[in-house]
Amino acid sequence: MAQENIYTDPATKSMEELVALCKRRGFVFPASEIYGGINGFWDYGPLGTALKNNIRDWWWRQMVECPPIGPDGEPVEIVGLDSSIIQNPKTWEASGHVGGFSDPMVDCTETKKRYRQDHIEVLIVDDKGCWGFPENNIDYIAKKLKKANVSRDDGTVKNLTDIDTSEYEKIIAPDTDKPGTLTAPREFNLMFDSHAGAIKSDENKVYLRPETAQGIFLNYKNIVDTMRVKMPFGIAQVGKSFRNEVTPRNFIFRSREFEQMEMEWFCAPAESAKWYDFWKHERMRWWESLGVDKANLRFRDHDDDELAHYSKMCVDVEYKYPFTAPGYGELEGVAHRGCFDLTQHQEHSKTKMEYFDQAAQLAAKEAGKSKEEIAAASKYIPNVIEPASGLTRAVLVLLCEAYTPDPDRPAGVYMKFKPKFAPIKAAIFPLVNKDGMPEIATKLYHELRQKYVVQYDAKQSIGKRYARMDEAGTPFCFTIDGDTLNDNAVTVRDRDSGQALAERLPLDQVDAFLAAKIAE
Amino acid sequence: MAQENIYTDPATKSMEELVALCKRRGFVFPASEIYGGINGFWDYGPLGTALKNNIRDWWWRQMVECPPIGPDGEPVEIVGLDSSIIQNPKTWEASGHVGGFSDPMVDCTETKKRYRQDHIEVLIVDDKGCWGFPENNIDYIAKKLKKANVSRDDGTVKNLTDIDTSEYEKIIAPDTDKPGTLTAPREFNLMFDSHAGAIKSDENKVYLRPETAQGIFLNYKNIVDTMRVKMPFGIAQVGKSFRNEVTPRNFIFRSREFEQMEMEWFCAPAESAKWYDFWKHERMRWWESLGVDKANLRFRDHDDDELAHYSKMCVDVEYKYPFTAPGYGELEGVAHRGCFDLTQHQEHSKTKMEYFDQAAQLAAKEAGKSKEEIAAASKYIPNVIEPASGLTRAVLVLLCEAYTPDPDRPAGVYMKFKPKFAPIKAAIFPLVNKDGMPEIATKLYHELRQKYVVQYDAKQSIGKRYARMDEAGTPFCFTIDGDTLNDNAVTVRDRDSGQALAERLPLDQVDAFLAAKIAE
Repeated sequence: MAQENIYTDPATKSMEELVALCKRRGFVFPASEIYGGINGFWDYGPLGTALKNNIRDWWWRQMVECPPIGPDGEPVEIVGLDSSIIQNPKTWEASGHVGGFSDPMVDCTETKKRYRQDHIEVLIVDDKGCWGFPENNIDYIAKKLKKANVSRDDGTVKNLTDIDTSEYEKIIAPDTDKPGTLTAPREFNLMFDSHAGAIKSDENKVYLRPETAQGIFLNYKNIVDTMRVKMPFGIAQVGKSFRNEVTPRNFIFRSREFEQMEMEWFCAPAESAKWYDFWKHERMRWWESLGVDKANLRFRDHDDDELAHYSKMCVDVEYKYPFTAPGYGELEGVAHRGCFDLTQHQEHSKTKMEYFDQAAQLAAKEAGKSKEEIAAASKYIPNVIEPASGLTRAVLVLLCEAYTPDPDRPAGVYMKFKPKFAPIKAAIFPLVNKDGMPEIATKLYHELRQKYVVQYDAKQSIGKRYARMDEAGTPFCFTIDGDTLNDNAVTVRDRDSGQALAERLPLDQVDAFLAAKIAE
Repeated sequence: MAQENIYTDPATKSMEELVALCKRRGFVFPASEIYGGINGFWDYGPLGTALKNNIRDWWWRQMVECPPIGPDGEPVEIVGLDSSIIQNPKTWEASGHVGGFSDPMVDCTETKKRYRQDHIEVLIVDDKGCWGFPENNIDYIAKKLKKANVSRDDGTVKNLTDIDTSEYEKIIAPDTDKPGTLTAPREFNLMFDSHAGAIKSDENKVYLRPETAQGIFLNYKNIVDTMRVKMPFGIAQVGKSFRNEVTPRNFIFRSREFEQMEMEWFCAPAESAKWYDFWKHERMRWWESLGVDKANLRFRDHDDDELAHYSKMCVDVEYKYPFTAPGYGELEGVAHRGCFDLTQHQEHSKTKMEYFDQAAQLAAKEAGKSKEEIAAASKYIPNVIEPASGLTRAVLVLLCEAYTPDPDRPAGVYMKFKPKFAPIKAAIFPLVNKDGMPEIATKLYHELRQKYVVQYDAKQSIGKRYARMDEAGTPFCFTIDGDTLNDNAVTVRDRDSGQALAERLPLDQVDAFLAAKIAE
């Protein structure tokens, strides 16, 4: 049945289970849960925070501290930044976010609810009527349409954006019974606004940044003037951004407060296509380094008609989320932004953003280029390639990727994180809480905690302890048992196989074993 | 002259030099500088971000991943959290921030400027008049009072808070010439507000958190229910907070957007005094571990009359900032918050915050306590000890502490960071860019960058390269020179002495040398 395929995909069920596990094990909690929550905001619990920090640190290490080797065999140059969330509001006029950064919205005059125009789908049943419903809303389909004695198969479904406004009078809006209550679409700005300073006035209106990128463009000139960087180079930052999404959804996929990892790569215009290609493939390599299955990742080039006005080329790295499967959804965008941003800021701030490229000038002269060619190569506003990804979205991907049902285990599921990203690297168990075992286990724990995030657990049966570590995604459990007193070795329980390794591991090799696994 | 002593303290000059160095070397930039800045907001440049991350990671390691050993010889238990900046607004009603979190402000009806009442000082010259001026405003003193033909020595200075409102009519406000334009003080809430959702109304008004602590209290119940923690335990988080300060000042000391490192320690009421004492001393130890001179740190116990209404005891760890010297200013507060916060949230959310303490119950029974005593020991709303410090303030302290003028060096100054916190751990220089030296230097650089933040520099004279590293606070420079080709060793230039170490360091020992220095 078509209805089942579209609206009750098995993926939805697994998302529900994942969200439940995230709450049960302290990965992600709904924000302000004791006050009934707040739509679009999430808190990261102890395990979720550790997972997020691990991904953040890996991105920072591979992007800023030890950036990749470029086409010339030398590491590319990238510096870090941490700019303010609130900036001078002129920033957002220059960037186009004041005015342009908005979604068309429709209001329902009956229920006073507001919807994103492109999130409403309309079921058109020739002579019976037109039912509007929030896209993919299973409840609506099941209850409301049934009540009206129509089914999805009776008609055709169109997105509201594909219906002429003059036809809106026929549409029965969600949660209403009569047609014609939807207004024509209006623009709604996605930036949160506030006021800085003691007086609330238009003059001191400020915005929470909707992207970290503009903080980088604001500091481009400062970095060039102070850090002795030479073209090409990058500026990277990790930080929170805010978008007042009308319909936050899909767990932490689309929330109103989220964390980004963005890098702006500045280069000579003539070199931009080469670097676009470099970063496109480099970013895919990075996602694979997280342990994400290649089969769940793909590139999707933007068509010309979906490119932002400033963008020359853009490719998304997409992931097969449970709620998009068998389709894919956005994970990271690698955009060729041309010289749009720096030119805008130059115009609005009257600060020269031109770069004098001594090396390119020399090369052009040596190549016998014309005067005009030499001038063009020597002085330019750089082009920008932007690999922009979501840190909180990366957390979601690793949670989805790790979630592995296994009915044979007590927990019924285990979280298969690559050791490098696992919130807890290892657990240390005395088999029983006596006979000298706790003493050895405690000693090992005290040693390992100096270098790794490890947990000591002596409570309940060993099976229950394994089950807890399966849900936390802890790759290894070291058990001190009766034999340890004689052979100075431990049992290593491997999370993925659910079995003990054949070989016992000498106590003095545990550190090296763990270090090697985490480095993988 | 008294005027000089009060208003042109030498410290002010050294702060100006520090701020200039911070900008010149990419530690801290004014936010939105190309748009003329924005009062109270700062961006952290490449070196400042690295310094900040290093402090953050050390706090997290010592607080969450490898927390200190408690009085019983075992590590205390602390879990990490990363809660949302925007929470359900009921949070701030319960915490007392809506309504209570405010500063008394006075307006000037003439200039329309607004001032914090306690930031205005008044020079009273008996029969000539009363001049109000922003405290410590040297410009005002120099220009305005001179114009009026009075000097500071002619009268006495009082803070505006010490003057009765009925006397305000005599005061000549800053930037005015006639008396009586200051209004009586009014309360002004320090929280930034905004709206979540598509419609702006009182119903969906939200606030940017003024402290990270409340996000912890909101999740106390979730953590107890999911993380198998037992009393006593802590919840820690690092993150941004926002306070709409009327007069942000002293560089990054008091800004409107800042970063906090807060831990809430939950314990049985009967044990709270013991833990207050534990955390007080533990936090001082931590600040010393950053390499801060003990002479510049001190405790200051709050007097009863300056305690917040919810607080039973509070001690500040204070630092001798250049702008407070010879006095001290706040760095971290360790507060005994009693059961105030959890009780407030219990009342407002109707969620039970009581903890059932099985271990305490057993102990009370075994000690033969009365039924009432056993009941009281078994079930309680925990008390909270809160060590709350500013991450951005910690950056300021390390910048102040590291800043070491040295007229004998080319840069005139060097930044004496402890290697663990230095943004760049080492620089690798070929003495000259030929004769096989760059090849060896490049090889060493490629090896070291896998583990450390290091920089390769082959540009300009070796003296200039040292000078750059002095200002960046890089503790070691490894120079590959003519001898390296024969002895496979490098010269180690030590930042603090400004000299080469007597012994050359074999190439294959550079890694271990650096690791040992960073571990110190």
